[in-house]
Amino acid sequence: MNRPQLTALLDAIRRGELSVEDGLAKLRGLPFEDIGFAMVDHHRPLLSGAGEVIYASGKTADEVVAIAERIAAESQDVLVTRCTPELGARLAAAVPGFVYHARAHIAVRAPTPRAPSLEGTVLVVSAGTADQPVAEEAALCAEFFGCAVERLTDVGVSGLHRLLAHRERLWSAAVIIVVAGMEGALPSVVGGLVARPVIAVPTSVGYGVAANGQAALHGMLTSCAAGVVVVNIDNGFGAAAAAARMLRRPS
Amino acid sequence: MNRPQLTALLDAIRRGELSVEDGLAKLRGLPFEDIGFAMVDHHRPLLSGAGEVIYASGKTADEVVAIAERIAAESQDVLVTRCTPELGARLAAAVPGFVYHARAHIAVRAPTPRAPSLEGTVLVVSAGTADQPVAEEAALCAEFFGCAVERLTDVGVSGLHRLLAHRERLWSAAVIIVVAGMEGALPSVVGGLVARPVIAVPTSVGYGVAANGQAALHGMLTSCAAGVVVVNIDNGFGAAAAAARMLRRPS
Amino acid sequence: MNRPQLTALLDAIRRGELSVEDGLAKLRGLPFEDIGFAMVDHHRPLLSGAGEVIYASGKTADEVVAIAERIAAESQDVLVTRCTPELGARLAAAVPGFVYHARAHIAVRAPTPRAPSLEGTVLVVSAGTADQPVAEEAALCAEFFGCAVERLTDVGVSGLHRLLAHRERLWSAAVIIVVAGMEGALPSVVGGLVARPVIAVPTSVGYGVAANGQAALHGMLTSCAAGVVVVNIDNGFGAAAAAARMLRRPS
Amino acid sequence: MNRPQLTALLDAIRRGELSVEDGLAKLRGLPFEDIGFAMVDHHRPLLSGAGEVIYASGKTADEVVAIAERIAAESQDVLVTRCTPELGARLAAAVPGFVYHARAHIAVRAPTPRAPSLEGTVLVVSAGTADQPVAEEAALCAEFFGCAVERLTDVGVSGLHRLLAHRERLWSAAVIIVVAGMEGALPSVVGGLVARPVIAVPTSVGYGVAANGQAALHGMLTSCAAGVVVVNIDNGFGAAAAAARMLRRPS
Amino acid sequence: MNRPQLTALLDAIRRGELSVEDGLAKLRGLPFEDIGFAMVDHHRPLLSGAGEVIYASGKTADEVVAIAERIAAESQDVLVTRCTPELGARLAAAVPGFVYHARAHIAVRAPTPRAPSLEGTVLVVSAGTADQPVAEEAALCAEFFGCAVERLTDVGVSGLHRLLAHRERLWSAAVIIVVAGMEGALPSVVGGLVARPVIAVPTSVGYGVAANGQAALHGMLTSCAAGVVVVNIDNGFGAAAAAARMLRRPS
Amino acid sequence: MNRPQLTALLDAIRRGELSVEDGLAKLRGLPFEDIGFAMVDHHRPLLSGAGEVIYASGKTADEVVAIAERIAAESQDVLVTRCTPELGARLAAAVPGFVYHARAHIAVRAPTPRAPSLEGTVLVVSAGTADQPVAEEAALCAEFFGCAVERLTDVGVSGLHRLLAHRERLWSAAVIIVVAGMEGALPSVVGGLVARPVIAVPTSVGYGVAANGQAALHGMLTSCAAGVVVVNIDNGFGAAAAAARMLRRPS
Amino acid sequence: MNRPQLTALLDAIRRGELSVEDGLAKLRGLPFEDIGFAMVDHHRPLLSGAGEVIYASGKTADEVVAIAERIAAESQDVLVTRCTPELGARLAAAVPGFVYHARAHIAVRAPTPRAPSLEGTVLVVSAGTADQPVAEEAALCAEFFGCAVERLTDVGVSGLHRLLAHRERLWSAAVIIVVAGMEGALPSVVGGLVARPVIAVPTSVGYGVAANGQAALHGMLTSCAAGVVVVNIDNGFGAAAAAARMLRRPS
Amino acid sequence: MNRPQLTALLDAIRRGELSVEDGLAKLRGLPFEDIGFAMVDHHRPLLSGAGEVIYASGKTADEVVAIAERIAAESQDVLVTRCTPELGARLAAAVPGFVYHARAHIAVRAPTPRAPSLEGTVLVVSAGTADQPVAEEAALCAEFFGCAVERLTDVGVSGLHRLLAHRERLWSAAVIIVVAGMEGALPSVVGGLVARPVIAVPTSVGYGVAANGQAALHGMLTSCAAGVVVVNIDNGFGAAAAAARMLRRPS
Repeated sequence: MNRPQLTALLDAIRRGELSVEDGLAKLRGLPFEDIGFAMVDHHRPLLSGAGEVIYASGKTADEVVAIAERIAAESQDVLVTRCTPELGARLAAAVPGFVYHARAHIAVRAPTPRAPSLEGTVLVVSAGTADQPVAEEAALCAEFFGCAVERLTDVGVSGLHRLLAHRERLWSAAVIIVVAGMEGALPSVVGGLVARPVIAVPTSVGYGVAANGQAALHGMLTSCAAGVVVVNIDNGFGAAAAAARMLRRPS
Repeated sequence: MNRPQLTALLDAIRRGELSVEDGLAKLRGLPFEDIGFAMVDHHRPLLSGAGEVIYASGKTADEVVAIAERIAAESQDVLVTRCTPELGARLAAAVPGFVYHARAHIAVRAPTPRAPSLEGTVLVVSAGTADQPVAEEAALCAEFFGCAVERLTDVGVSGLHRLLAHRERLWSAAVIIVVAGMEGALPSVVGGLVARPVIAVPTSVGYGVAANGQAALHGMLTSCAAGVVVVNIDNGFGAAAAAARMLRRPS
Repeated sequence: MNRPQLTALLDAIRRGELSVEDGLAKLRGLPFEDIGFAMVDHHRPLLSGAGEVIYASGKTADEVVAIAERIAAESQDVLVTRCTPELGARLAAAVPGFVYHARAHIAVRAPTPRAPSLEGTVLVVSAGTADQPVAEEAALCAEFFGCAVERLTDVGVSGLHRLLAHRERLWSAAVIIVVAGMEGALPSVVGGLVARPVIAVPTSVGYGVAANGQAALHGMLTSCAAGVVVVNIDNGFGAAAAAARMLRRPS
Repeated sequence: MNRPQLTALLDAIRRGELSVEDGLAKLRGLPFEDIGFAMVDHHRPLLSGAGEVIYASGKTADEVVAIAERIAAESQDVLVTRCTPELGARLAAAVPGFVYHARAHIAVRAPTPRAPSLEGTVLVVSAGTADQPVAEEAALCAEFFGCAVERLTDVGVSGLHRLLAHRERLWSAAVIIVVAGMEGALPSVVGGLVARPVIAVPTSVGYGVAANGQAALHGMLTSCAAGVVVVNIDNGFGAAAAAARMLRRPS
Repeated sequence: MNRPQLTALLDAIRRGELSVEDGLAKLRGLPFEDIGFAMVDHHRPLLSGAGEVIYASGKTADEVVAIAERIAAESQDVLVTRCTPELGARLAAAVPGFVYHARAHIAVRAPTPRAPSLEGTVLVVSAGTADQPVAEEAALCAEFFGCAVERLTDVGVSGLHRLLAHRERLWSAAVIIVVAGMEGALPSVVGGLVARPVIAVPTSVGYGVAANGQAALHGMLTSCAAGVVVVNIDNGFGAAAAAARMLRRPS
Repeated sequence: MNRPQLTALLDAIRRGELSVEDGLAKLRGLPFEDIGFAMVDHHRPLLSGAGEVIYASGKTADEVVAIAERIAAESQDVLVTRCTPELGARLAAAVPGFVYHARAHIAVRAPTPRAPSLEGTVLVVSAGTADQPVAEEAALCAEFFGCAVERLTDVGVSGLHRLLAHRERLWSAAVIIVVAGMEGALPSVVGGLVARPVIAVPTSVGYGVAANGQAALHGMLTSCAAGVVVVNIDNGFGAAAAAARMLRRPS
Repeated sequence: MNRPQLTALLDAIRRGELSVEDGLAKLRGLPFEDIGFAMVDHHRPLLSGAGEVIYASGKTADEVVAIAERIAAESQDVLVTRCTPELGARLAAAVPGFVYHARAHIAVRAPTPRAPSLEGTVLVVSAGTADQPVAEEAALCAEFFGCAVERLTDVGVSGLHRLLAHRERLWSAAVIIVVAGMEGALPSVVGGLVARPVIAVPTSVGYGVAANGQAALHGMLTSCAAGVVVVNIDNGFGAAAAAARMLRRPS
Repeated sequence: MNRPQLTALLDAIRRGELSVEDGLAKLRGLPFEDIGFAMVDHHRPLLSGAGEVIYASGKTADEVVAIAERIAAESQDVLVTRCTPELGARLAAAVPGFVYHARAHIAVRAPTPRAPSLEGTVLVVSAGTADQPVAEEAALCAEFFGCAVERLTDVGVSGLHRLLAHRERLWSAAVIIVVAGMEGALPSVVGGLVARPVIAVPTSVGYGVAANGQAALHGMLTSCAAGVVVVNIDNGFGAAAAAARMLRRPS
């Protein structure tokens, strides 16, 4: 309910066309539903640009397929994360247009190719081959959110020259997502090389005290490079959403 | 060594003005010093805009004062974080122009007032009174880095109406820094309300399982609001540096 | 053995109808069996109203079936928690009247429908679809304990408007069980909206630092909403038992 | 703004005593302030019955005194928790009527004596002498919230007979708050003896793996007595607030 | 090499039957092999009374069978712990006389029945049905080590009367092994009831913060009953070995 | 109340010397007080032999002195653990006969010298000089409990020869208490050398991952020497109480 | 690009055979590729002596085989760690010369036998049979890196005589790798016996608080034997690489 | 007792100058004392070259001074680590020749200057100013152990060019000790640049999840640079002892 509607309501009361009781009943639900609509205006574009996202983990396959079908019926794009191959196959069978990306555990239904809707390139940098699933999740999600995406792989800090050889690409990116497991040192190095936002994504790659990504996470949070920000372990999706927030123009 | 200098060097060799051996000697040190200069170009503005930052913790007072004096001698602005009142007093005595901010544990030497050098407002939102030292560190550092800063305090999630009453300010900010201790739920709520970047700063406020900020940190990293990014516990400085990275125009 | 029975026993001794030896024998077991009986009077209704509860985890299927058969032979209601589909099928085959609830991992044998024996409604609120198994365990157990139960699902804090739209239901509940994984922020928000008991149930939903529910647990324990109480991770059963304790009239 | 006030406002518009523009201006702030007032209706009695609570930790003494003075000026009761002796002395000097309870670290300003406003007794049971500060915080806060409070001390599980000697008092309580450090086993025993709510408060008493209350907390959360609920370590205030929620009649 | 052997060696040197060089050679290895023999005198009875123990976890089935066959060839008794059903079957097939205990994951080859070689009864008390595998490991191992063993099951602290009904058995035991998961409170209660040694064994039974036995372990280590000693989680074998150490007469 | 006393009571009722009402009054308190008395019979000698123990930590000095005075008034021995020098001085001033042991933080009031009341020697072995406070607490408490005590110091595992030089003393002890910080490896070595009980006491000595005794505790719990038992970090008192349990003859 | 190549380039410019522009283009990439080559000079021999290492974990089988084929095509030796039996079989089928070591989970392709290229023996000492996989990984990797390797197995600290019997072998080794799980005490004992480097490798052998190697890791890091160094849990490969670094002659 | 002494003893028996009984008595103590002497031969040079080390933490000042005086009386060099300024002053007053190093918390008594006794330079690299105390402890201890030491400071990974500018010094060192707090990434970078041993020392510098050095420790243990070895947090002494082990020639 916006200002004109509210003015009309009060006018009706003043004119005696609406009783105080009925006015009270209409106003009773106002605050929250209004917030609801307001929030929808801001909420939708935040996560999907032109589509919806389903986090498949913990949902049954039936539930995911049903939600996806409903969204597709509204002709919206849809992205399914943490999607198993079996679920990917079911989605492809049930809803025309789904493509499954096995390495990233992502199923996506969107027009291909499509031009980025946001300005500036997101560069996804990853430390090792084992970090690829998370890096690819970040890259595909960022594309879904409307970003132009580039990838730079296998540039861990113990082989510094491989990273430094690509400094031009680092410097030209608008946002850099750095994906690394083990000791998670790569964001510190990248953060020291560039002036733009660096989003660090720890991965659960490693063993022993790597502790499913805890060592990388803590390394990234205590980075000596000022202003590196961090998301949850293996959360490539979250990094992509953050990058999209950064590239989105102020409302 | 930049491109023109390198061209000159090669020209000198071609012309025979410089022997191959001498050219070799000059080139030998090139790569790293060059990286060094290149990085300075990018590094300086990243952290300070027009100044330097000293992290005082773990340094002796003598060391901090000496560094600050050297920077001041170069007429640069300087910011000292994690600065005790005693150190603040020593700095004020030793270097003209230092102002100490007791709540934020920050000493700063910079022209006052100064116009923001970056476009867009950074809104620093904090959950409770006890979170003020960290929130204020974030706000003062962001100002030092050239941001326009606004503050919104005491809007914890158990009194939702206080936060919702300020939704317009949330929507008009370019970047929001959310500072919260205890369960750290505020960034999830804010992240659901806005489409722009949300930087969550857990504080060590709380007791028991709050565990010096661990509960807040973990709450923020597992936020159900997509794209919330996180910095280390009590790291208001880092959040400000991250905000500045986001507002800085692509190079 | 209550006071009248004890008086009768001593009277019988005084009248010589009971020998000191036999009196001694009867008294020997008194303290503890009496405690036992006293406790049964309090214990039984606490957990089951009109039935028994079997926690299946760690018991062999044979053990669970045998216990269930013995209880059923006494015509008592019986609830089996943490019940696998295989065990559910075995129970249904062995004991007439068992119904298996797959999502909640619960098998229950009780008259259907039955009127609540306790006054006041228990509202089970859950944050996401993946929290349903725990929320449903809480709901079904609360019904077994004699509570009237309502459900409110998918109202996480990043979409506040969905929760606020149901404030009437929150305000009319006698006890609210809030089930949430990830950062577990929902109980703080609910606790700030209502004046009645809020029982928070962290779930193991999430990954990375969600740490199988640790982040949610810690978030709930450090809730800024005063008086929120917490049970173990995924312990829907315990929340239901606590709700029943709260609705039971003082003895 | 409550229902009668809103009705009056609409009536004034209907009668032409208030223009639509002015009504709009008053309603503009309504939704959130209304939520605020609505929540106050629910919120105030929740925490204080007839007063306000200030959590002193992390606030400066000046801030606490200023807030307390403002509340006292409104003739409201006020409770200050985590209050140091120094702060207690300052409050007593600044605001007439404050009493400082050293063991509980609480300063309270309220009429003495006052009859309980809630029905049913809260029994605060504590395991050892060292748990007294937390137990006393729970007891004093519960009294502030309007509960009738009894205390039962020094009844740890290694001397079971001391606890069992008081079973009648356990059975007659409406809510039992059990305060224990070390292994935190007391709530399991009490929970097995009574059918009413048991709120467990772990304390930071102990050393080594007691880990500032972690062992007690985990022991209480994994209690084999169904339906025991838990609050944060040393959170006597929270337990009292939870007890008040349970004794408050449904709205 | 024992004292008689050493005397004989020195005698042989004195008589000239052994050269100094050859004596030196024999003595060279003496210290350590002698320690070995000395330790065997103390070591063997410690662990097995009249047999050997094989910890199967981490060994291949082939390795376990080969070791067992070698011991059996020496006509010694042998106990295999952490033995899978498959390994138990292979042992039974390969070595006559092996009996597999499925619940305790133990395979044992020893004369049946055999009289206890140590004086005093070991009472194995367990809290719940799910603790049986560990309790039974403790009981069977204690029997293998020569102890008379009794069992007392399903006497958790939330049903205190069940435990207290057996106080006579508690008081007549020479050593009590208490096996419990969840909050691990049982040893505190038992330790308060008896004056003899209480060995607490935490089990990995439970979920959430039970954390695979961590809560029980910490509860037992912080027991308010003085002098309760603890072994590793699920270490029924270690508790049995400790009990045997306690019942063994001083050397 | 024991069996003869109970028989006498019933006889008095039968003979008419005691009314049923008076008998009832006496029996009313019986069960629990009887448990109490029964437990006292077992409990007292368990912890003190001929005295009482006060754990001073968390108690105010006034409380400790008052308790000590009351016990002294009953002519009982008394031991105060975790006793600061200040408290020790106050005790010595208030109660004649107190001796303060600064290194062990123990104040004791008992006849000196006194012959051990338990058979068999307790050997307290410690790894380093920094472990002395805990080792001395164990030794003094064991003496208070009636044990003959010997000490063996500075025999860490990195200088094995120092330990092995004392093997005779190890072999002649009835119970060995092994006190060690850092990696806590000493109990494994001692446990492999002797057949009698080994009680391991981890100390908070060390830094970094020593983590206030966690590393030592975990090392001791995972000892490869079978049957080593463990108490809480720095719990010399508990180890002494356990040793006394082991040396006490079966009831 | 090495020094001769750089000299040639500058010579070509000087002689006019190469334009300044073309020289500039070649030099543009120089710094980093040069670093690369420089590092290769140091890097290669470090890890492999005469070959490459592939860490198979987290890579798909296709990726590992492809990399191995490419290296083999260059006639280089190759070592694959964390190699499953299935992957080992595929490698053996795809690339002639691969040998799979099942216990160590290693596949290696190298001439057999080959003389050690480094001076001094690496002695791999392990505590128990279950530590063999990690010990064997260390041994095989050290051989691949050019070390002469000896093995000493089953010498845990609870049977000290077995270790001491081999003191000569300990004293003659140039570097000792000590592999142990459980409490990880062995490196402390070995470190006290020898003056040469001791590299401790914790293994994930054990249960309960062994916590997948955490107890052993912490025990080793807090070793009372000065100068023991540690690698990650189960990281036999890292220990071998460290040993090779130590035996490699200074550059 | 060494070989010549043992030969003499056996000769005396053979010659009848020593009875078998007396020989037995002398041999009885042999093995362990002999081990002791053997170990001294190896032990001393390991830790001190020509001196003794006292770890002051946990020892009283009186104890440290007494030990230092005894060693000085034997004209030996002595090093005191974790030495407070007060203790340093007392040592300087009590024992001529002591020098106190305030930043490193070390007191040392040794001839100055003295030539290194070991071949090869130890380079101590540190990341930040706050790491200096630990770096300086490592440097001074290494010098005490006979190493030539160089220092390289303030070369953290976020300013890579500062480190790379010193690559020659990195390449010429025999052993590199890398000291770093925060995320501890420096050893990974250094380890990728050099082929010689890299000893990583995590420091407790940092806050929040830096967790007193845990993040740095875990980062170093999971380093992607193969063969980096690690010591305990803040253990500069241990790193120096390890470096000395590596430079010591094989025995």
